Order: sequence, then structure tokens, then C-alpha cells
Amino acid sequence: MSARLTIALDAMGGDHAPDMVVGGADKARERCPDVRFLFFGDEQRIAPLLDQRPELKRIATIHHTPDWISNDAKPAVALRTGRKSSMRLAINAVSSGEAQCVVSAGNTGALMAMAKIVLKTLPGIDRPAIASVFPTQRGESIMLDLGANVECDTRNLVEFAVMGSVFARTVLGLMEPTVGLLNIGAEEVKGHESLRTAAAQLRETPLPGKFYGFIEGNDIAAGTVDVIVTDGFTGNVALKTAEGTAKLYAEFLRRTFESSLLAKIGYILARSAFKKLKQRADPRRYNGAMFLGLQGVCVKSHGGTDALGFANAICVAADLVVQGFNEKIKAELAHVGNTPVPDSSKAAAV
Amino acid sequence: MSARLTIALDAMGGDHAPDMVVGGADKARERCPDVRFLFFGDEQRIAPLLDQRPELKRIATIHHTPDWISNDAKPAVALRTGRKSSMRLAINAVSSGEAQCVVSAGNTGALMAMAKIVLKTLPGIDRPAIASVFPTQRGESIMLDLGANVECDTRNLVEFAVMGSVFARTVLGLMEPTVGLLNIGAEEVKGHESLRTAAAQLRETPLPGKFYGFIEGNDIAAGTVDVIVTDGFTGNVALKTAEGTAKLYAEFLRRTFESSLLAKIGYILARSAFKKLKQRADPRRYNGAMFLGLQGVCVKSHGGTDALGFANAICVAADLVVQGFNEKIKAELAHVGNTPVPDSSKAAAV
Repeated sequence: MSARLTIALDAMGGDHAPDMVVGGADKARERCPDVRFLFFGDEQRIAPLLDQRPELKRIATIHHTPDWISNDAKPAVALRTGRKSSMRLAINAVSSGEAQCVVSAGNTGALMAMAKIVLKTLPGIDRPAIASVFPTQRGESIMLDLGANVECDTRNLVEFAVMGSVFARTVLGLMEPTVGLLNIGAEEVKGHESLRTAAAQLRETPLPGKFYGFIEGNDIAAGTVDVIVTDGFTGNVALKTAEGTAKLYAEFLRRTFESSLLAKIGYILARSAFKKLKQRADPRRYNGAMFLGLQGVCVKSHGGTDALGFANAICVAADLVVQGFNEKIKAELAHVGNTPVPDSSKAAAV
Repeated sequence: MSARLTIALDAMGGDHAPDMVVGGADKARERCPDVRFLFFGDEQRIAPLLDQRPELKRIATIHHTPDWISNDAKPAVALRTGRKSSMRLAINAVSSGEAQCVVSAGNTGALMAMAKIVLKTLPGIDRPAIASVFPTQRGESIMLDLGANVECDTRNLVEFAVMGSVFARTVLGLMEPTVGLLNIGAEEVKGHESLRTAAAQLRETPLPGKFYGFIEGNDIAAGTVDVIVTDGFTGNVALKTAEGTAKLYAEFLRRTFESSLLAKIGYILARSAFKKLKQRADPRRYNGAMFLGLQGVCVKSHGGTDALGFANAICVAADLVVQGFNEKIKAELAHVGNTPVPDSSKAAAV
């Protein structure tokens, strides 16, 4: 059972696990050829799901684990008590070389804490970041950090810029991605001190892309830059604010089409066009937050997603491995001139 | 020429000033009876605009000012060199008692700096905040701070909560408004230290509303709480991210209706329903950011707005005066037990 790519899956993480994990793997199998899956979790629940999917079963192995991490477990507790959990053993599989990447829809804080302890940060990276791709007026952009680091210093922001632009070039296929620092005004005098020093440093840093300068919140969806760099607090608020606003407008749209008979008929006529819009803006299409900066590929799926969303998270992880993202990061960091930091003990407040 | 309410207008601030300022006053006149306007700015440009509007002219006075503040002027420079500017003299009119409130669509940083120097903060308020009302799934909410204070400590956040809930009760008419602190998770352990101490303090503070706890970015548009409290950096990013996302979805909608002949016909049928949606979500309806915490009412209009938007900002200012917002804040602060701070010298980084 040799395969180009082996993916470790935390089969017990997520609201609809293990069903959507197994279902997601089955969908991902069709999109990523030559792949193998290691399912970590309750064999009694996973095996029957695989029995229903003979093609998936042929490329799947179950590693039975009696424990899993609950959604409300604190990262430190999960670290201490979750050594036999599905999440931890799935991460271990990457560290041991059994798998090339791991995907989980479980507890984000626990996943980041475990991934940092087990996989370690890349040489030259002080702190890993959570990154995600989302739709904009001009196409797609990547934003990081989305919540791994509440406080970020200049060095962290510069490293995020390097990782983000390597991603944009490697996975999004942009030759010269633009990088913006999220701030509250384009002027030099605005924002936190760390933003100003990071901007000064990024102007001198040979990025794989081009440093654009400061951007503001409205530039995110406008697609003004390809890579949006921010601290984990601001990034998390911005991402969730955008999600909430999108939901609000979807609700306004629904109410509008239901507000009169003519509007209802209008909807029926425009329905197939709206189906395409729905597909385009489908959050499942953008499911899969990447933990960048680790010696190993780890992707976090949204906990509430379904098989289609989970399949997307699997493909995000596969893409990072196949494109050799981490190797390119290492090469780029050497180029930027960062030196490895032995102390990666600063805990990220996930 | 006696009137219940006199409003000072910076006639030279904004992209389309003074036309939209005069036009906005004319529209506001119809909505706020018994009002008078003081126009500060270039008489040669304002007078002809008033000549076209005899009903407005009857309740208007022009105060000629040779100077105005440019949009890119730094607040400190504007303070030093803009003593004869339309913005400064309009603010002075509130301080002297000639007017009860001031509205400007000019440079936000300069307006806040001047308003703080001239009007001073309310006793018991350490720092004024910028606040705005916006639509949610449940109705309307108010968020503050939106950019006056990049860094906020516990005390500032608690004061914002008090001001926001007084506003929600007084102007939005909610008997027991709910107040949430914007964070990146509902758990106690998450976010900045100042958020945790503010939450602890708000649980003990007799607010005019009810403290809900932490909320996340998606709760803003969901309308989970009536008052969203945050630091000026995060609030500014969240507001602009929401604006950008709304624009993105409007653009997706436009493209969807243009994507096929059936969709185009569908739009024609649903058009009048969409007109109502457009009106509901019209940013001009929510134009008018309030500077709360000053001894005097000062409202900032969006710089790019038109007469309709500017009229809304005028009505926001009039509402604050008519509802006795500042008096209620003072009463509430006495209730909360805050003591006046003599030192209001900490400069806000607008």
C-alpha cells in the first residue's frame, strides 16, 4: 500500500465526527490521487463508516485510540492528559514520518499547543501562525495570524509576512504577491509601535513578494493585497467580523426575496445564478486554517463543517505538502537572514 | 431668530463641501424642527448655496473663516495652525454656548484633537471614544471605540461600556441594553489582560444595562449585544472590515444578476424589493460617528458622503442634544462611582 502522500486524520474532532471525517476523506480521495489516510479514533465507530466506502477503505488504516480531546478542554490540560487522544496520535504520526500532514476539526487551542510541542517550529520562526485563504473582489487573499498569538512583536509580524508571501507564491501561484500590514490608517504615524517598526523592517526585507505598506479593514475584502499580516487578536476579530457580515447580508437577501410575490418570482428566475454565487462564497470552499511555521503540515478544519468542508481542509493540507511549502519557507528565511531561535518556549495564547 | 437647537457646521470639511454641508442642512431641517444652523467657512462659496434654499437661509448664519483643515493635516499641526479654521471655530461655538453641537465631515484626527482641547472631557471620563450605530440581524447596535484610542486600559473600556449603554438606553430606546466586550473567544482565559480585568470589573459595575460577557467578531453583525465595547484599534479594523465585506457582497450580487438573461429578468421583478434592501443597508443611514465623553456634542460625518448622509449626521448630533445624553452620562458615572480625573492630558493617537 505505497502512496505518494499519507494524511493523518483526527477522526474524533469536530461536531459531526467521525462521520464527516470519513465522508470528507472519501471526497478528498477523488480530488487528490495517490493518497492514503490514517484514521485516529474509535475503531468501532470508524470501521462501519469505511465498510460503506470500499474505495476509501482500500487506502485507509484505522489506529484505534480510546481518548479524544473535548472542545472545551484548555490547551494545557489537553497537553497533559491527552497523550493517547486521537488528536495527539495523529500529530505524532507526522512527527514520526508515518504521515506527511495532519488534519483535525477539533479544539483549536489544543491542536496548536500539541502541534507546537510535537512538531516544533521551523528553524528561524519564533512563533507559528494560523492562516486562511478567503475570497476578495480581486480573487483570493491569505491572512495571518488568525488567533494563535494575541500579542505579536515586530519579528513575529515580519515572519508572518515572509510565510504569507511564500504561501501566496507557492500555493496561490502569484509571482509577486503584495503584502500589507493591517492598521487603522495608511499614515506612518498610526497604529501600534510594533506595526511601525515592522513596516520599517519590511521595507528593507527581501520578501518573495512586494511590501505594499499599511492597509485598513476595508482593504481585506477589496483584495488590495494578496497577503494580510496582523496579530492574532486583530486577525481573529477581522475574520469573524467578515463572516458575521456575510451572514447578515445573506439574511437580508433571503428576506428581500421573500418580501413580495414579484421578488419571489424574481428569485425563481435568478435561482441558478444564485446557486453559483452560493458556491463561490461557500465557507466550506475556504475551510482549512493552516498552522504555518511548524516542522510539519497541520491544518485545522472548522468544527461545524460537513464532509465537503472537511474534504477541502484535507486538500489544503495535501497542497502544502505537495508544493513543498515548508522547504520553500526555510529557503526564504535563509535569504531574509533570520537566525534560528533556540527558545521557542514563549507560549502562544491560543 | 430664537430656536430650540443651534447646530454649528464645519462647512468646509468633506470631499464635497460646502455643497453637501448646505444641502445636508436643508434636508436635516425637514427632519429636526425648530433648528438653526451656523455655517463656518468661506462665505463666498456658502452664500450662493443658501440663496438657492430660501427656507434654510432664514434659519442660517454664516461665520466667514478664511482657513480650513486639510484631510492630510496631522492633528498636532492642525491644532497649532488651525485656530482660525472652519473646524476650530465651529467647535468653539459649542464651547461658547452659541451652539449646542457641532458636525464636521473633515479630518477625524484633527476634529478629535480640537474637540478634546476645546470642549474637554466629561468629569469622570478619562478618554473620549468614537461610537457609531450600525444594522444587525436583530436591529441596531452601537460599537465604541472606533479609532480614537489605539491602546485602552481597563478603566477606558469600563467607561466605554457605561457611555455605550447610556446611549443605547437614551437614543436607541432600549430599557436594558446588553453590553459585550469584543474578544477572540468566550472563555475567560482568552484575549488581552485589559479585557479580562475589564470583564471582572463590569460584572461588579451597576451599568444602565446588563453585562453579557465576551463576544466574538461574528457577534457584531448577529446583534448578540446592543453595545460592543472594544479598543480603538480593534474597533476601527472591525468596522472597516464589515464595510469592506458588505461591499464585496454587493458586488457579488451585482455580478450574479448580470450573469444570465434569466437572472437579469429576475432582478427586474425583484427590483423594488431590492430598493428597500438598499435603503435599509444604505451606509448614509448610519453616517455620523459620535465623539462620546466630551463636554459638548461633536459628530463626525464620513468625508465622502453626500447631502443625505450629512443630514443624517446632523440628526445624530441633534438627537444627542435633545435626549440630554451628556447629562445622563454624568448621572450614570456618579452612580458607577467614578471620580473625576484632573489629568486628561494622555493624548489619543487618532
